[in-house]
Amino acid sequence: MAKPKKQPRPKAETPKGFRDYFGAEVTERAEMLRRIAEVYHRYGFDALESSAVETVEALGKFLPDVDRPNEGVFAWQEDAEGDKPGDWLALRYDLTAPLARVYAQHRNDLPTPYRRYAMGPVWRNEKPGPGRYRQFYQCDADTVGAPSVAADAEICAMLADTLEEVGIPRGDYIVRVNNRKVLNGVLEVMGLEEGEARDAVLRTIDKFDKVGEEGVRQLLTTGRKDASGAFIEGVGLSEEQAGPVLAFLTSKSEVTTETLANLRAAVGESQTGQEGVQELETIAELMAAQGYGADRVVIDPSVVRGLGYYTGPVFEAELTFEIFDEKGRKRQFGSVAGGGRYDDLVKRFTGQAVPATGVSIGVDRLLAALREKGRMGGEAQGPVVVTVMDRDRMADYQDMVGELRRAGLRAEVYLGNPKNFGNQMKYADKRGSPVAVIAGSDEFDCGVVQIKDLILGAKIAESATLEEWKERPSQFEVARSELVAKVREIIDGQGQ
Amino acid sequence: MAKPKKQPRPKAETPKGFRDYFGAEVTERAEMLRRIAEVYHRYGFDALESSAVETVEALGKFLPDVDRPNEGVFAWQEDAEGDKPGDWLALRYDLTAPLARVYAQHRNDLPTPYRRYAMGPVWRNEKPGPGRYRQFYQCDADTVGAPSVAADAEICAMLADTLEEVGIPRGDYIVRVNNRKVLNGVLEVMGLEEGEARDAVLRTIDKFDKVGEEGVRQLLTTGRKDASGAFIEGVGLSEEQAGPVLAFLTSKSEVTTETLANLRAAVGESQTGQEGVQELETIAELMAAQGYGADRVVIDPSVVRGLGYYTGPVFEAELTFEIFDEKGRKRQFGSVAGGGRYDDLVKRFTGQAVPATGVSIGVDRLLAALREKGRMGGEAQGPVVVTVMDRDRMADYQDMVGELRRAGLRAEVYLGNPKNFGNQMKYADKRGSPVAVIAGSDEFDCGVVQIKDLILGAKIAESATLEEWKERPSQFEVARSELVAKVREIIDGQGQ
Repeated sequence: MAKPKKQPRPKAETPKGFRDYFGAEVTERAEMLRRIAEVYHRYGFDALESSAVETVEALGKFLPDVDRPNEGVFAWQEDAEGDKPGDWLALRYDLTAPLARVYAQHRNDLPTPYRRYAMGPVWRNEKPGPGRYRQFYQCDADTVGAPSVAADAEICAMLADTLEEVGIPRGDYIVRVNNRKVLNGVLEVMGLEEGEARDAVLRTIDKFDKVGEEGVRQLLTTGRKDASGAFIEGVGLSEEQAGPVLAFLTSKSEVTTETLANLRAAVGESQTGQEGVQELETIAELMAAQGYGADRVVIDPSVVRGLGYYTGPVFEAELTFEIFDEKGRKRQFGSVAGGGRYDDLVKRFTGQAVPATGVSIGVDRLLAALREKGRMGGEAQGPVVVTVMDRDRMADYQDMVGELRRAGLRAEVYLGNPKNFGNQMKYADKRGSPVAVIAGSDEFDCGVVQIKDLILGAKIAESATLEEWKERPSQFEVARSELVAKVREIIDGQGQ
Repeated sequence: MAKPKKQPRPKAETPKGFRDYFGAEVTERAEMLRRIAEVYHRYGFDALESSAVETVEALGKFLPDVDRPNEGVFAWQEDAEGDKPGDWLALRYDLTAPLARVYAQHRNDLPTPYRRYAMGPVWRNEKPGPGRYRQFYQCDADTVGAPSVAADAEICAMLADTLEEVGIPRGDYIVRVNNRKVLNGVLEVMGLEEGEARDAVLRTIDKFDKVGEEGVRQLLTTGRKDASGAFIEGVGLSEEQAGPVLAFLTSKSEVTTETLANLRAAVGESQTGQEGVQELETIAELMAAQGYGADRVVIDPSVVRGLGYYTGPVFEAELTFEIFDEKGRKRQFGSVAGGGRYDDLVKRFTGQAVPATGVSIGVDRLLAALREKGRMGGEAQGPVVVTVMDRDRMADYQDMVGELRRAGLRAEVYLGNPKNFGNQMKYADKRGSPVAVIAGSDEFDCGVVQIKDLILGAKIAESATLEEWKERPSQFEVARSELVAKVREIIDGQGQ
């Protein structure tokens, strides 16, 4: 008889493209989201947490980011009920599609305009890459049902406030504003309102960030050789035809009124275009009146991200300080948030167009930026570790940590096998503990405890001379009643 | 030629068994989780956020709650890569199975013992019922790698602290502790260490909460008629055999030492049983030494929930105040958290048994309890609404809300169509706004604004006599410069 085959052990791995977050990664993100929510709340936005799972039907098939092609959703079919086949369900891929569903479903109960914010994970079934995960956080604020450009201006002001609130100082960020209607005006002037040529022009503009003015000129006309030497065919416009597009993209001036004048010239007689310029002017005026100068919110027609997706004003927040990229080259940190106006949000469900405008903050990029600037620790401080010298004294050790905790200090008793004291100190080291507390029968008899300053201890071990070692001992004996005061004194001193 | 069939509109609905959360439902939960995390952190626990998606292989197939049969997971198969069939992935159904995977995967980098907390949604593919959703929050804390019963005691103390921290006063909750080893000892004494009869006894004990002592006695012996008149067959034990089980379940006394003596009698010579009683005694001693009296943490062998799942100490937190159920009957609020020791957590992955103990808080039930006690508002205060009398003054209105926000007040400009002033007031009403601000050209000319106390206004409209109406006007005119001070005064007064 054959032996029963042994069940192989399961692999202890996340699925490809997923990851776990530990300690400070979790708490720093939670703290940042809390601060963002506070700003959103102060602006009158209400929290919404929609279900992570939607019907594929409600979700629709379109994804907003033009720079992420071939992406899909994680979907599965429900079990059939009798003869009725089960619904197809899917994980949400962003927070905007669920907002559309929620607004359509609850529109009779929700106020209009409906200002809502939402924060949470979204899922994309796409090929994972370095730093690109299939589950990541989004943090959105949208105003539904407000046609006024004042709603767009409010989003821009709120975005600036939010960045400052989470720790990006004024001068280190800029909110740039463009308008799809202006581009539409330019295309109208060119006789490219619709059709393949228009779409090709839109796709080309989207590369402005990467290839710059000259690159776009080549791509709009006869074509361009890219860095690898491959030839990219052009759209086939003449130099004259390409002119207005390039004029639009490069019309930004130091002075907002000049930028607006340049745009007005670029859109000529187009009514849509004029309307777009007017909207930008109103946004600039509202911003200025509230004290948001062009050092914080600026009209900038070179913002192309999302221009194909949005229908009116488009915003992007960039961090302007320089960092070194993985190849050691200096570059600007770049975009951390984007948004704009999109007016067909709810139409799929109700047949009625509902104006909407909003912004999405790239939480993980913003966290990376704050770490880059040293504004977030990246490592949480470990707990004070009360070591165990005598198993029978567990209640006394628990008493010590209880006292420390009541004083607001993070503290724990070592709960592994206490036999090997070295292991206890290794554990404290692994936890990043600032202080270890040691008490055996001698100490209990005398009513004292030993306190070890682990940060100072590590420093001394690294570099101190024998003299220094003697002069600045990293271990002290104090009366048991002094425990909390002394531990606090050491921790407060370590921060300096 | 047939007309192209029109695509039907998608239904704006969550999938069955899912729901959305609005406003205070979201923020109150977030605030509660933040407070719980603070306590966990102070106890030395580190945050962990594992991915929501796991391989089915890593997740395993067992679900911990014995009272939720037929439940499954939401699972789907990844696309094949070449000849290799895609992995099966699934949404996590709890936070314990992912902890096992994370600990097995990262055990060389994690400290031992590893104290971690996790909070977030989990998903169950089961038939939804009233108040039972297929996505809900869990909030867990576990210590992995600590065999000492001091780790269990720590969890109990932390659970008591947590309940007080979120607003359940001492006296309104009790943490009850039992031990599976004691039950094992009882079964050993009965000669029922293993086999079908043992499993039948375990299943029967689980009904103690519902059917009480007499019910369990009947079910262990000859059988029982339930409320509907249906006959449930008994396990077939004699009265004598059923005795030790019932003695175990009912051995709780007002005095802990008596409870322990009763248990010691029930387990007789069984070594496992004696060990279990010893563990309970140690927990009771540690609790008492730290000042957690039997009014907060109590040894109680009538705790049966999870006794079949856990391998050592078992805990349950109950709220002891009375509420009225949906049928108007008084009853205790009941369980809001449960946990215990389980020692096979990581063995599936590594072959090595790793001791673990932990607790899971039922976030939604705890929130419901706090609302029941009036300790959570249930409704967030709406924003101050600055109405729009004159479109061209938008910058001035924005200026007002800017000032209010900088003073820490929640405020917004009405961004819908301002034509119909009645709609603006209806909007403010729907938002639960405490105050509306009104300013037209007259007001701007005189440097004043109108402030309307909406809460007082609503009260007056409900019940006031004409005299009162005159005496306590709900609308005031104040200088523009007084705006913030006056609005704050009104809001502060409304709270009283």
